[in-house]
Amino acid sequence: MSRFMSARFDSLEEYVPGEQPRDMQYVKLNTNESPFPPSQEVINAVNSEEVARLNLYPDPTAKGLKERLAKRYGFGVENIFVSNGSDDILNFAFMAFCDEKCGVTYPKISYGFYEVYAALYSLDSKEVALKEDFSIDISDYFNAKRTVVIANPNAPTGLLLSVEDVKKILDTNRDNVVLIDEAYIDFGGESCVELVHEYDNLLVVRTFSKSRCLAGARLGFAIASKELISDLEKIKFSTNPYNINRLSLLAGEAAIDSDSYYFDRAKDIIEAREYTVTELKKRGFTMTDSYANFIFAKHESIGGEEIYLELKSRGVLVRHFSKAEIADYNRITIGTKEQMQVLVSTIDDILAKKGCAK
Amino acid sequence: MSRFMSARFDSLEEYVPGEQPRDMQYVKLNTNESPFPPSQEVINAVNSEEVARLNLYPDPTAKGLKERLAKRYGFGVENIFVSNGSDDILNFAFMAFCDEKCGVTYPKISYGFYEVYAALYSLDSKEVALKEDFSIDISDYFNAKRTVVIANPNAPTGLLLSVEDVKKILDTNRDNVVLIDEAYIDFGGESCVELVHEYDNLLVVRTFSKSRCLAGARLGFAIASKELISDLEKIKFSTNPYNINRLSLLAGEAAIDSDSYYFDRAKDIIEAREYTVTELKKRGFTMTDSYANFIFAKHESIGGEEIYLELKSRGVLVRHFSKAEIADYNRITIGTKEQMQVLVSTIDDILAKKGCAK
Repeated sequence: MSRFMSARFDSLEEYVPGEQPRDMQYVKLNTNESPFPPSQEVINAVNSEEVARLNLYPDPTAKGLKERLAKRYGFGVENIFVSNGSDDILNFAFMAFCDEKCGVTYPKISYGFYEVYAALYSLDSKEVALKEDFSIDISDYFNAKRTVVIANPNAPTGLLLSVEDVKKILDTNRDNVVLIDEAYIDFGGESCVELVHEYDNLLVVRTFSKSRCLAGARLGFAIASKELISDLEKIKFSTNPYNINRLSLLAGEAAIDSDSYYFDRAKDIIEAREYTVTELKKRGFTMTDSYANFIFAKHESIGGEEIYLELKSRGVLVRHFSKAEIADYNRITIGTKEQMQVLVSTIDDILAKKGCAK
Repeated sequence: MSRFMSARFDSLEEYVPGEQPRDMQYVKLNTNESPFPPSQEVINAVNSEEVARLNLYPDPTAKGLKERLAKRYGFGVENIFVSNGSDDILNFAFMAFCDEKCGVTYPKISYGFYEVYAALYSLDSKEVALKEDFSIDISDYFNAKRTVVIANPNAPTGLLLSVEDVKKILDTNRDNVVLIDEAYIDFGGESCVELVHEYDNLLVVRTFSKSRCLAGARLGFAIASKELISDLEKIKFSTNPYNINRLSLLAGEAAIDSDSYYFDRAKDIIEAREYTVTELKKRGFTMTDSYANFIFAKHESIGGEEIYLELKSRGVLVRHFSKAEIADYNRITIGTKEQMQVLVSTIDDILAKKGCAK
């Protein structure tokens, strides 16, 4: 830190994105990207004629994209917010709906950025432990008197809350915002987006990065009551109104227009997930019941960090977190069936070397 | 505002971007975009093969782009920061270098976003009036004991401070950050970027939106001491680490590689500016001595808002600000020579109608 930096950031620790080593070509199963390219419609939409128009600002209201999202999810345009990735939306939500009077609560094991935002804005944050089996005890969030933030499915566990469970949290928190981060909802979970019609305190955050194969375009959206959306718009227009570039707007529009392609790719991921779960179980792994495009797995006799390092040395990247509660585990992104076959055979290799082969 | 929004935003007024009406095809001279497309190298770089890789996250460290900028401007990579447009950098700088102990000061007539950031972060802000001729009195910023923010050239006046003047401000503010916003420096001004070698309190903010014809890609950069840059990185990695998308990174890299194209386009703009200044002066306009890709002009007998409206009704958009001190003026973006000829003949039309033709 320089001598000019505000002292309120003295103890801030920034988020650490998944590594992107360049020393060799890896099978990259560490950042929950889709292994599939965006749809042909997206590739057609982002063409050289559009690139030649990059001298012009994007539409800061993102009208075209919002209209498509509104139609797709059955809401009005005033219920839709779009921004530069869902992290951008989470950041705005922490700014808008938390302050020295209203803190925040979220599961202790969850998306690592929640605690970063809490620290960034010096919030009173209540981190709630998961149950022994890594599931969320919803009663921990009843009458929270704080902004509630829950990833559903949760990361890195992949475990899902039912819509009924979300409803119970909403019912007991009518006077504070409940943010449900549905980044991974399209891989078998049921979205709680319909509850927006009933609850003015619900903010559902979604992303184009996972099921819509656009992590590189940086595009997230949120669905909520028009009042919550207008708060987020106020923060956006007070920080960076043109925060989505022209080409990502076009990519997002085309992605909504080609929804069936993405539905099929999510099915491919779910199939590859089932395959991976079955094969890893045969090999002495246990794992949570994932509804996401990753699994969270530990081996009966080899430690989490060791598996991560052994895989990495063999060209397969997965994500290992050093937090004590989950240090035995690795989060493994589900890629194509072929990539998962490479993972499985690489694990066979490791188990053979360690004398743990079955 | 919803009942959930933090009360600290009660009086926040967001930034209002230039209008983008769609009722007809306008000659758009209201948002200081370049009228020229990006270079052919940029168009080649953002190709369908790259669009097909949008399923992958961008490099959050933006290594390739930073390396090119470092080489281009004669600094180390550790002196370069890149982000999602220069607004993003301004926002981070206000967060990092201002707080309840350190306020901010900037010219009262300047880029409208400075006062929005000051309000957003509830800062003690000192807005300093310009001199009668709209120039900045640098002594107003000596020993400011706050973060100093100055656009150079200033907007919407286009007036330039010399490097010597900036040096005097830096010399008298060794213990606070001086942010020089050089969004418009490439249209005839001299950059103060070399002073970064001498001053650890100087933060120079630049953009690809103006001279580099990439407003639609959202790309800004900053040059400063490695300590200031590392502070900005900390804020970026605590809000939205992947804030530049893959295609904009590629566009930015190619833009640096084709610098001479942009140098020539800036020359075109300067020529079109000289032409416009000469023609408007013949028609009873006075204007500040602009070093930017816009001019700031008022007519001797017709009011600023009236000219704006008359131009708009004839299909020419310029930007009018309602602040009392500058309400007689319009900020007119410099487009191509042909666009400026349309502006001039449209003004002839208006003057003839009003009986003011010379």
